[in-house]
Amino acid sequence: MARIVEVGEADDPRVDDFRDLSRADRRPDRPGGRGLVIAEGVVVVRRLLASPYPVRALFGVHRRLDELSADLAAVDVPAYAADADVMAQVVGFHLNRGVLAVADRAPEPEPRELIAGAQRLAVLEGIGDHENLGSLFRNAAALGVDGVLLGSGCSDPLYRRSVRVSMGHVLRVPFARLDAWPDDLALLRDAGLRIAALTPRAGSVPLGQADLDRGPVAVLLGSEGPGLTEEAIAAADTAVRIPMAGDVDSLNVATSAAVAFHEMGAGR
Amino acid sequence: MARIVEVGEADDPRVDDFRDLSRADRRPDRPGGRGLVIAEGVVVVRRLLASPYPVRALFGVHRRLDELSADLAAVDVPAYAADADVMAQVVGFHLNRGVLAVADRAPEPEPRELIAGAQRLAVLEGIGDHENLGSLFRNAAALGVDGVLLGSGCSDPLYRRSVRVSMGHVLRVPFARLDAWPDDLALLRDAGLRIAALTPRAGSVPLGQADLDRGPVAVLLGSEGPGLTEEAIAAADTAVRIPMAGDVDSLNVATSAAVAFHEMGAGR
Repeated sequence: MARIVEVGEADDPRVDDFRDLSRADRRPDRPGGRGLVIAEGVVVVRRLLASPYPVRALFGVHRRLDELSADLAAVDVPAYAADADVMAQVVGFHLNRGVLAVADRAPEPEPRELIAGAQRLAVLEGIGDHENLGSLFRNAAALGVDGVLLGSGCSDPLYRRSVRVSMGHVLRVPFARLDAWPDDLALLRDAGLRIAALTPRAGSVPLGQADLDRGPVAVLLGSEGPGLTEEAIAAADTAVRIPMAGDVDSLNVATSAAVAFHEMGAGR
Repeated sequence: MARIVEVGEADDPRVDDFRDLSRADRRPDRPGGRGLVIAEGVVVVRRLLASPYPVRALFGVHRRLDELSADLAAVDVPAYAADADVMAQVVGFHLNRGVLAVADRAPEPEPRELIAGAQRLAVLEGIGDHENLGSLFRNAAALGVDGVLLGSGCSDPLYRRSVRVSMGHVLRVPFARLDAWPDDLALLRDAGLRIAALTPRAGSVPLGQADLDRGPVAVLLGSEGPGLTEEAIAAADTAVRIPMAGDVDSLNVATSAAVAFHEMGAGR
């Protein structure tokens, strides 16, 4: 059962985990910081409470903490309550969502663990934009992807903005990092997954004809601008594409991913 | 051939079309304003120049106007050049993209004109969020949708933020408004289009089994939270859904739209 602890002053050291979240040089969720996982808003806080990440504390206005009372009954952490002004002073900006939670990181699974038994995986290369990364995890969760593998050049999915944009689904969809890139794609092939690289290049198979809903499959996704590297495409088993109208920029990567994820589970 | 006109002072009345774009009460792109269409950045400005909207003027730093010189050769409008500081004073904020263009609106097509001969249409209900609307138009352009019909409760696609998020594709994909909602859906049926409502409700057909790529079809899309109204669903010919993993929030509406648009053109 979480303890509600009133916080009346913004300089109270008990809420230091939540301090100055907008100041890049002091942010606890940055690699240079303490690497904490920060959840914002009732929906995302609820997902953090249900996740494997060890929650350290909550911080919110009474109304939002009340909304979470059923969830808080199951955890033994302090829930710091303050008014909106004190919260804004601590956090560094006015927080519309009215509640935050903070957790330590947990060990990430080994790629082999994540791959074993998976039917549908996403493998990312060069996805540096935190919002795209968050959206992609949200889409993966909604469309039944079992896990995400991070190849070279990907950002941290647990960065605060990714967590928020994902609506907390980065806290639920397991992810692991592939160190040897793209050589580690062999781990997928060894586990019986077909690897399909999504790329607009000539000769790639239209997604609707690629039968991605048959058998275990991993879709390889690159960033919106440069796309997948030649090395990554060469390491895949097949190249697939979303048919596009002439002279239109490519789709946003999270949107392309959603189209591919749907194809993987379409069950025709 | 556009004329380059140097602007040295922020109070120059010739750039009044571009003034105070961030002040809601004075914004020329708001319904209460003069309803101007505003394009930001080289890519979007280029699409505005190629659109049916009558361009009034450009305003940018020299470097960006230089990038547009080939496009400007074909139009006879003033191109106001200023340094970044003067631009920021006029516009009201620092403009990373370095160039703007402004146009008058053009008459919208009648729904019947837009529907005639269309193979793939999107029909929207209650899409109030400008970014979602912009993303949806971008996805429509990329995935070969012939046009967009706006039912009740939709925002203005030509609002500045929608134009930007669409990457200028709202200036290319034709749209029209349906006044009698949802009765005007009959216009689509009369023209031979099948109307498929995208809704998670029980009994709707999984998208992968709905054969949306056979014959003229219009997909009916509602907003992320409330979804389509009962009246709209009842007025459709069929209800289809994107199969979702358990207890996950629905997808973003522009993302759902992309999945449906891809199905409409999948050509299996």
